[in-house]
Amino acid sequence: MSSGAGETEVRTDSLGEWRDYGESELPVPLAAALAAFTEHGYHGTSVREIAARANLSVPGLYHHYPSKQSLLQGLLERTMTDLLRRSEMAVAEAGDKPVDQFDAVVESLLRFHMYRREQAFVGSTEIRSLDDDYRPTYIAHRDRQQHMVDEIVFAGVEAGDFATRYPKDASRAVTTMCVGVSTWFKLGGELGADELIHRNLQIARDAVGYRS
Amino acid sequence: MSSGAGETEVRTDSLGEWRDYGESELPVPLAAALAAFTEHGYHGTSVREIAARANLSVPGLYHHYPSKQSLLQGLLERTMTDLLRRSEMAVAEAGDKPVDQFDAVVESLLRFHMYRREQAFVGSTEIRSLDDDYRPTYIAHRDRQQHMVDEIVFAGVEAGDFATRYPKDASRAVTTMCVGVSTWFKLGGELGADELIHRNLQIARDAVGYRS
Repeated sequence: MSSGAGETEVRTDSLGEWRDYGESELPVPLAAALAAFTEHGYHGTSVREIAARANLSVPGLYHHYPSKQSLLQGLLERTMTDLLRRSEMAVAEAGDKPVDQFDAVVESLLRFHMYRREQAFVGSTEIRSLDDDYRPTYIAHRDRQQHMVDEIVFAGVEAGDFATRYPKDASRAVTTMCVGVSTWFKLGGELGADELIHRNLQIARDAVGYRS
Repeated sequence: MSSGAGETEVRTDSLGEWRDYGESELPVPLAAALAAFTEHGYHGTSVREIAARANLSVPGLYHHYPSKQSLLQGLLERTMTDLLRRSEMAVAEAGDKPVDQFDAVVESLLRFHMYRREQAFVGSTEIRSLDDDYRPTYIAHRDRQQHMVDEIVFAGVEAGDFATRYPKDASRAVTTMCVGVSTWFKLGGELGADELIHRNLQIARDAVGYRS
């Protein structure tokens, strides 16, 4: 939760913007594809159904997205670039201390998987449905996100802040835990998003053996 | 990994059986349904396709499973009862100490999600496709598994073994981490299953603040 107060960093108008989640900013055809894929899966969805949900004719939809596959790719590409952009902003704002960077990237992952649950669900379940020419790009995005967490955990171990004997495994476990939030989090539940973030951030610190 | 050596417990021929994963024991029609659902999802799969994979005629398949829904329910019911049975055996063999029970249930969850990845994947992605009359049964199974971990973590905190301030959240985080293993584990990877279990067990202990 720390943003590295007191350290030298560039302050801009967009500070903390990575925490802001309003309504989804997906273009209408991608939002329609997301709703349909969430409900019936990629292979269970027709282009006709997506067009109907988007209030477009099938030719009108094809004008923007020439195939069902291009809708899936457009959706997953936006999902991953949004996640990466937010995580990179969070880390950049956190300053130089590994524990502050760790808190920032974990909070970013948690928020994304709370506020973009459906995108996260389709992203993790429809990798199987991506054409071979795009799948490596998607996996590279995912690896880049994991690598960002790995580097921070390694730095924390190096600095003596994190005591875990298994930094790479702990980093993956923390990421998995954050991603998994999308499977159980409900907006408007008993505990608010901020309290759940606070608790899971503490659990993530424990998982890497943070010594305060 | 401890099985509570030195404590009084009933030793039987089936001791440690919860660790044994051979080939899947699914009946042929359910194995065929699993393969098809894994590849194309429930809504993207036809009964004809399942029958072909099972080497059965469609009427022959319907003789045992009267609908695609009954195949999904049969598959998920077996998945959850197998997981619960193994976890309960593991805990029962672990003796009375919370940390031994914790190790046992975490190891059971990890192994299941390593060796039954496809069943776990279909189980977590096709809850949306279950008919309303069965879905509550499935969710009750899942809750029972979570509750088993919760009770052990609460007991560990009570006994002063686990220092976490958020036992319920930590229990869910640990379960989420174990379930998520199915998204990345590959048989024959660089590290064997036993080494990965050893490391993730340590990370799970850290996540609940275990003090040895």
